[in-house]
Amino acid sequence: MLRVAVAGASGYAGGEVLRLLLGHPEYRAGRLEIGALTAGANAGTALGALQPHLLPLADRILEETTPEVLAGHDIVFLGLPHGQSGAIAAALSDETVIIDCGADYRLTDAAAWEKYYGSPHAGSWPYGLPELPGGRAKLTGARRIAVPGCYPTVSSVALAPAIAAGIIEPAVNVVAVSGTSGAGRKLDVGLLGSEVMGSVRAYSVAGAHRHTPEIAQNLKAAGGEDVSVSFTPVLAPMPRGILATCTAPVRVDAAQARAVYEKAYADEPFVHLLPEGVLPQTGSVIGSNAITLQVTVDADAGLLVVIGAIDNLTKGTAGAAVQSMNLAVGFDETAGLSTVGVAP
Amino acid sequence: MLRVAVAGASGYAGGEVLRLLLGHPEYRAGRLEIGALTAGANAGTALGALQPHLLPLADRILEETTPEVLAGHDIVFLGLPHGQSGAIAAALSDETVIIDCGADYRLTDAAAWEKYYGSPHAGSWPYGLPELPGGRAKLTGARRIAVPGCYPTVSSVALAPAIAAGIIEPAVNVVAVSGTSGAGRKLDVGLLGSEVMGSVRAYSVAGAHRHTPEIAQNLKAAGGEDVSVSFTPVLAPMPRGILATCTAPVRVDAAQARAVYEKAYADEPFVHLLPEGVLPQTGSVIGSNAITLQVTVDADAGLLVVIGAIDNLTKGTAGAAVQSMNLAVGFDETAGLSTVGVAP
Amino acid sequence: MLRVAVAGASGYAGGEVLRLLLGHPEYRAGRLEIGALTAGANAGTALGALQPHLLPLADRILEETTPEVLAGHDIVFLGLPHGQSGAIAAALSDETVIIDCGADYRLTDAAAWEKYYGSPHAGSWPYGLPELPGGRAKLTGARRIAVPGCYPTVSSVALAPAIAAGIIEPAVNVVAVSGTSGAGRKLDVGLLGSEVMGSVRAYSVAGAHRHTPEIAQNLKAAGGEDVSVSFTPVLAPMPRGILATCTAPVRVDAAQARAVYEKAYADEPFVHLLPEGVLPQTGSVIGSNAITLQVTVDADAGLLVVIGAIDNLTKGTAGAAVQSMNLAVGFDETAGLSTVGVAP
Amino acid sequence: MLRVAVAGASGYAGGEVLRLLLGHPEYRAGRLEIGALTAGANAGTALGALQPHLLPLADRILEETTPEVLAGHDIVFLGLPHGQSGAIAAALSDETVIIDCGADYRLTDAAAWEKYYGSPHAGSWPYGLPELPGGRAKLTGARRIAVPGCYPTVSSVALAPAIAAGIIEPAVNVVAVSGTSGAGRKLDVGLLGSEVMGSVRAYSVAGAHRHTPEIAQNLKAAGGEDVSVSFTPVLAPMPRGILATCTAPVRVDAAQARAVYEKAYADEPFVHLLPEGVLPQTGSVIGSNAITLQVTVDADAGLLVVIGAIDNLTKGTAGAAVQSMNLAVGFDETAGLSTVGVAP
Repeated sequence: MLRVAVAGASGYAGGEVLRLLLGHPEYRAGRLEIGALTAGANAGTALGALQPHLLPLADRILEETTPEVLAGHDIVFLGLPHGQSGAIAAALSDETVIIDCGADYRLTDAAAWEKYYGSPHAGSWPYGLPELPGGRAKLTGARRIAVPGCYPTVSSVALAPAIAAGIIEPAVNVVAVSGTSGAGRKLDVGLLGSEVMGSVRAYSVAGAHRHTPEIAQNLKAAGGEDVSVSFTPVLAPMPRGILATCTAPVRVDAAQARAVYEKAYADEPFVHLLPEGVLPQTGSVIGSNAITLQVTVDADAGLLVVIGAIDNLTKGTAGAAVQSMNLAVGFDETAGLSTVGVAP
Repeated sequence: MLRVAVAGASGYAGGEVLRLLLGHPEYRAGRLEIGALTAGANAGTALGALQPHLLPLADRILEETTPEVLAGHDIVFLGLPHGQSGAIAAALSDETVIIDCGADYRLTDAAAWEKYYGSPHAGSWPYGLPELPGGRAKLTGARRIAVPGCYPTVSSVALAPAIAAGIIEPAVNVVAVSGTSGAGRKLDVGLLGSEVMGSVRAYSVAGAHRHTPEIAQNLKAAGGEDVSVSFTPVLAPMPRGILATCTAPVRVDAAQARAVYEKAYADEPFVHLLPEGVLPQTGSVIGSNAITLQVTVDADAGLLVVIGAIDNLTKGTAGAAVQSMNLAVGFDETAGLSTVGVAP
Repeated sequence: MLRVAVAGASGYAGGEVLRLLLGHPEYRAGRLEIGALTAGANAGTALGALQPHLLPLADRILEETTPEVLAGHDIVFLGLPHGQSGAIAAALSDETVIIDCGADYRLTDAAAWEKYYGSPHAGSWPYGLPELPGGRAKLTGARRIAVPGCYPTVSSVALAPAIAAGIIEPAVNVVAVSGTSGAGRKLDVGLLGSEVMGSVRAYSVAGAHRHTPEIAQNLKAAGGEDVSVSFTPVLAPMPRGILATCTAPVRVDAAQARAVYEKAYADEPFVHLLPEGVLPQTGSVIGSNAITLQVTVDADAGLLVVIGAIDNLTKGTAGAAVQSMNLAVGFDETAGLSTVGVAP
Repeated sequence: MLRVAVAGASGYAGGEVLRLLLGHPEYRAGRLEIGALTAGANAGTALGALQPHLLPLADRILEETTPEVLAGHDIVFLGLPHGQSGAIAAALSDETVIIDCGADYRLTDAAAWEKYYGSPHAGSWPYGLPELPGGRAKLTGARRIAVPGCYPTVSSVALAPAIAAGIIEPAVNVVAVSGTSGAGRKLDVGLLGSEVMGSVRAYSVAGAHRHTPEIAQNLKAAGGEDVSVSFTPVLAPMPRGILATCTAPVRVDAAQARAVYEKAYADEPFVHLLPEGVLPQTGSVIGSNAITLQVTVDADAGLLVVIGAIDNLTKGTAGAAVQSMNLAVGFDETAGLSTVGVAP
């Protein structure tokens, strides 16, 4: 029996981790137990008041997010504002599997961290994206895991094969349209329903978004030593999903590019290269851990064009966290994760 | 090993049946097999082109909806336009479990059928709503099942206890707001995204909707011999979900009314009476088989007020179909069905 | 030249008043001047940062909402939280036209005010709904005007003719589905885009909503001395619009009911009784000051059914405010107001 | 008195032309008359059944789209499927102002037309985008006008100054997110509300979209002789609006780039360069003829980044048509057009 705690259970990441755990075969079989659920300002409240979709846990009372409450669990998921994971991790046993849905341990480059986050670098942990070259090995048996950002997940999976195969110039351009849950459950006028419905807007353009160096880090690790990344996030009126349009100057034709991707992802359970001509849509991966991709070449413009879709809360956050947990503790990697979306 | 066929696999009901079957423990355990998937105009097409969220079945080719194709299965789900189920049912073995998501066999009253559907009455089958008084017994071991309409499901569950307990006058008023998938995957200008987004509209008002006699039938069966039903359906800009506001002149106070509902649904796995003061929202039951209810009394107006929420495609259609299948063939009633929604 | 001030210019009501004023023929002709724009916490900010759709006023700096700032204007629109209008009104000249978009002066019954708002009753002002029987006369030349609530606007216009003509029992039931802007620009988790998109929910049910006594007051004034009002508001995933379903026990047939409404609204510029069988939709009145109605009878249930649609921010708030201003100062009643919506 | 006809009055473009005409000061002053309204399959229907937001014209009956019906008008707007404008134009007087919202006469290069549209080139007419260098002069007094495509409008206005000033390499990349009305009122499963809500998807990627050569044509005319255009359209769940993210390798810094745009658009009534750091959102320009822009430089990636927002139906179609009409017949260019959006 393994006991799991979720810190930040009142947020979107924590809620999605719980949704997935409630459907996990190890939980259903009674070998995984959901222990402490913690929160900040919401401590003392019943989960049902905050996450009414998690009916089986509706009566659970949120505790405070402290090391004492989280101690005594085998696995701890953290869904906290950045800057808070380090103190908790330091206070827990080295044997505890800590899976951080936040940013604190994603970047290996201290300078990049400090430039983008404006605080001292906490260090880096194994990165929870098994689909990257060499990514799976680092997670097997890991005791500390940094869950990737949502934009870097889809962007890196969309571009890494091309970088690794050397079929593009290392100057990539990503425009990614996201649902609003990516911004978290944050009280911000710009995130009110009245403001977001019926409107799209870009934000943090021209390299200002914190996911920019994370995308660069992943592509460098895939072989793109001198990669430059242009990243534009766009907010769209939907709760979930990211659609990323990724382009880069290309050295091969469409068939050659497709062959690279077919080979790269032939055995990946969650990456689906769609049939030629079929384009990804976020509506097909809601609640699913799948990444759907299409790859082609714009011959006139001389660009590789890769389109990728994920659910930012599932594969982009909590699904990656559960997938990482599975690898860390030796469950089947796909346990509790589906490639079936909820549509329409 | 049981073989399942789905007729109408390119529609929303058929797609949702398949989504639930793919997650069903009997399917995962290899004891349930997904056999023929059929369609009308879409026969010959790969399912992936029509239901891109069902990635594990993407390469399956849709066959024509004929008795020959559907023969040889133990269970056949029908998601067809009304009027087509009878001929298929007649051609299949009496031992085949046929679960009709359409309307053909829902009404017991031939006159009501003819008034609302304008065609001869085909008859009636056991009605797939186990939560109604006596409902479960009719489904255990059944070989023909009529899946309830989506509006009648939530309206009947919301009002039957009050009727059965005699705490209301039998003059009920239901205003139910639905997502667009309830109208099916139909090419209709009024269902285009440009038309429905940012707009709500009523339709089939003043008793014109075909679900009106079905609600009345259920409430009569619950004890409301002389019940009159006012039903107003409203279309809202969301894909899934129904929120029903149900009122009727009341003879008791709020606490007494609540006690009736607590007792009626104490043991129902899918009906959740929310804590006092907490109101249902459709966003909490998306993809879930739960019905969430709140019951109170408007003392000034002298009315019982019951609010209910379901996912019209899950508990309102395909979830009820799978729940009925479970009862019919002896699986655990809740197998493959969840009370956890996908939110936000 | 008349000078206009808008207090609460950073909110949705204030923004909509400004949108309408910018298109008002008196403003275009240079006979109406937009003076002080004030706010609470947002004072000191440029309007363009808060209301980016009002490009011609983008550089205007919001001042603090004080009597001193508002003095010296001929017309003052108030879009303030309730409880704040009285002090401002007391400090301004009796000759100033004050048009309060808030609730403070809507109710004539002090007991009803105190029951629903929990504070001392400030009094009542002429009620800005000229479409009610006798409503227009009270506004002509008025110097203090209480703009109706959004739900009472559509509900009262939908039901007053039936009450006045005595064709219904005075027991009305209103279920009204509203867009999110009706809740104001308020930081509330339940109003975040992630929460509202894809979901509908009821709130303040069973007579708890503050608009309940306002609807009752209007219907009593129309002749329904003993009227009881059941009111259920429902929140839908759209920024604007209200669709009200109004029912009551009826004493006439559909044709007689229709005749009553045709006569009642024959000369009203903003009330449009749609052709028989055509149902209102909110999407047709976005940005418009129109109220669209359909009236029929559900013979089986013995109910009058009236469906009405408005834009809650236009006819439901700011349009009524401008219409009232027009009457108060002697402009054409329809000046600056349109019956043309922005669709799709 | 000038008489105006609108062919294709049942579509989104035609409906928006009528919405703008109803608010046009020349119409209100009685100097512009709305004459024939025509349609294809919808001929014989009342406009109110198809465009219920145009209440003042609800009783107008749609006539058939024939030269005979359209003859005798001074101004004819065409909102027709491509390929149909030529025959009508040929049959009308040379003195009639014909404003084609369709594609037939946009491209000057016959080869580009044939490649993208697969039919013989009809020729080219003055291009209705006065904001392009030299664009206004061609429209003054014109009798035939080709209204630009929606994507080319925002993309060209976003990039032309940079091309003209030589501050970018002529290799531009446009990813533009559009609302669904851009696809027209077309019966297509992929445009159903159930499919588009909650989902974004790319389409016609890698140069396949017909607006690609139109963007290139405009940028070439602005001075980018050898420009290459990568264009990716993305469909988002909203009825209206386009947000374009435009990038290109840059030769100057952010301040220099901004200076170029400030100068280029200083006198344009509909182009608004937002204050530094403020990003465009489509929600601010709904129903408005404004184009809002932000321009900056991503120094790390070496790219100019221009974000632009329009309403695809207003400035992207019908607003441009009315603006062109104003120039053609000598009205004030901005008459009947607003920079005030309907928000939230």
